[in-house]
Amino acid sequence: MNSKLIRLASLPIGIPQVANFHFGFEELATIKTGELLLKTLYISVDPYLRAKMAGGHKPPLVAGDIVYSRAVAEVVDSARPEFKPGDKVLGFMEWRDHLIHNGEGLTVLNANGLPLSSYLSILGSTGLSAYFALTDIGKPKPGETLVVSGAAGAVGSIAGQIGKLMGCRVIGIAGSDEKVEWMKSQLGFDEGVNYKATPDIEAAIARLCPGGVDIYFDNVGGIISDAVINRMNDYGRVVVCGSIASYNDTETEMGPRLLPLVVYKKLLIQGFLIADYKTRFAEGIGRLQQWVAAGQLQYIETIMDGFDKLPEAFIGLFQGKNEGKMIVKV
Amino acid sequence: MNSKLIRLASLPIGIPQVANFHFGFEELATIKTGELLLKTLYISVDPYLRAKMAGGHKPPLVAGDIVYSRAVAEVVDSARPEFKPGDKVLGFMEWRDHLIHNGEGLTVLNANGLPLSSYLSILGSTGLSAYFALTDIGKPKPGETLVVSGAAGAVGSIAGQIGKLMGCRVIGIAGSDEKVEWMKSQLGFDEGVNYKATPDIEAAIARLCPGGVDIYFDNVGGIISDAVINRMNDYGRVVVCGSIASYNDTETEMGPRLLPLVVYKKLLIQGFLIADYKTRFAEGIGRLQQWVAAGQLQYIETIMDGFDKLPEAFIGLFQGKNEGKMIVKV
Repeated sequence: MNSKLIRLASLPIGIPQVANFHFGFEELATIKTGELLLKTLYISVDPYLRAKMAGGHKPPLVAGDIVYSRAVAEVVDSARPEFKPGDKVLGFMEWRDHLIHNGEGLTVLNANGLPLSSYLSILGSTGLSAYFALTDIGKPKPGETLVVSGAAGAVGSIAGQIGKLMGCRVIGIAGSDEKVEWMKSQLGFDEGVNYKATPDIEAAIARLCPGGVDIYFDNVGGIISDAVINRMNDYGRVVVCGSIASYNDTETEMGPRLLPLVVYKKLLIQGFLIADYKTRFAEGIGRLQQWVAAGQLQYIETIMDGFDKLPEAFIGLFQGKNEGKMIVKV
Repeated sequence: MNSKLIRLASLPIGIPQVANFHFGFEELATIKTGELLLKTLYISVDPYLRAKMAGGHKPPLVAGDIVYSRAVAEVVDSARPEFKPGDKVLGFMEWRDHLIHNGEGLTVLNANGLPLSSYLSILGSTGLSAYFALTDIGKPKPGETLVVSGAAGAVGSIAGQIGKLMGCRVIGIAGSDEKVEWMKSQLGFDEGVNYKATPDIEAAIARLCPGGVDIYFDNVGGIISDAVINRMNDYGRVVVCGSIASYNDTETEMGPRLLPLVVYKKLLIQGFLIADYKTRFAEGIGRLQQWVAAGQLQYIETIMDGFDKLPEAFIGLFQGKNEGKMIVKV
């Protein structure tokens, strides 16, 4: 069988271009004992892949590598007893429309009343990142003020909603008036800032958060984070879940020094990696499912159709083309 | 009785100058019920006072204020039952050679076999800051690598020694070859860096910490911290105890952005304030006393003689004139 695949043709400089990717074909052998033949159904595209291409996120992706990310696939043929044809599985997979897999790290998915793509969004590492990063590092208390950057994105749109469920006042920062309006009307955020139309972001945060900021859930870094961190209250927590503004930097970017603020305000700034919470995934999924079932948590997906759209979908992450989680349907 | 006192004459710009201070005199009234007459014995000068003059450390010190800090005094006369003449007391006091005090926040000191100045150094907030900041935020584990900046200073010289007691490899950064030699020979540090003679601090840290840095105990901020944080291991902890390099800045200083590193390396960066540990002071003092009594912990003081030396002693903190805790004997 012929497998379509996508390699990184060259390391991007700045924002990735379609030319950084190369489509190829490979004839798949017949599966051997211990192997599975999978048909890919949904592939997740995520900002951290850009960080892998820059070498910051380990292991790095280098030119010539087949790109890989989390995906949902269907088992077509199995030479492993724990998987049978028709099973839907979740795991890290190469960007291929069909692939041979040794089964390592794959989970068989149960029907959960939601579309299969939900395992890449609300019930996958996206939802789990929002839940654990906010609750474990941010430690929200009722009445506190939470600011979320990248608030219309995959993790941010969930983190802000969980903040509301935990009694916080939530202010989201996003890149268009439509996104701000949508966060307020659909996700229940209290306030929003369109950073592209706001020359002085710090003044906007000061106006919308007159009592200061207790928790900053950061997906973007850069000048947006400078502005929010300047408005933090004493003992504020900065949850660093991503830093998309920096992933495309070609050299070390300069910004105002943070350490004086850290000591003056007794801030906590902590980086987050979802893989560290593996032993608690069941707890997180249970909580997220409960909220979704009760209609208290909206999960938002932007699904692009067709394997060939993978580079475009990935690049779109840096152009603000997604609301919620960006997923490609193969 | 005539009291000599020191006011902040003007807010310093950059490094404080003697001209920023003004010596005055005030006739003290006879004490009333509830008051004490104190004779100051030792006064602590600390970098955070500069941060108060810049408004970063609250409450700020403004022009015209009598400067105040922690001090040890002797009770000369008392109209409060819990204090009697001859008692030695510790607390925040204005920079005066004699003063009237309402007793609030004062602790009567017991003889501990150490000089009275020890209550401003190893058994005071200096030693307690080193102990709680390192153990509570840094969470040292045997075999880990600890880098201390401002390592010949009051808090740094103790933090490094406690790191050794907890089984860490300890590298100190200080401002002269003499200080480096002293940290290694007297305090038991494994290695040291004289940052003034080291053009590439990051390369020096890389060479001395081939396995990376697990804990960075930071008293200084600025380019020294940039260098160390670049060499942190995944899940490294940055204990921000002070930021002396920034206290004299007249505008926001720029530096390489930290947030991408925080997310790539899952770092924790946290500011520290000793006042938050009030309920645990007895525990900390007990631990420190035990180590000192066992000869495992050296406490180092630079004592300048005479009330009039207060401004000079304070300014000396920014010129690297102290080894260990800077104290003025009145």
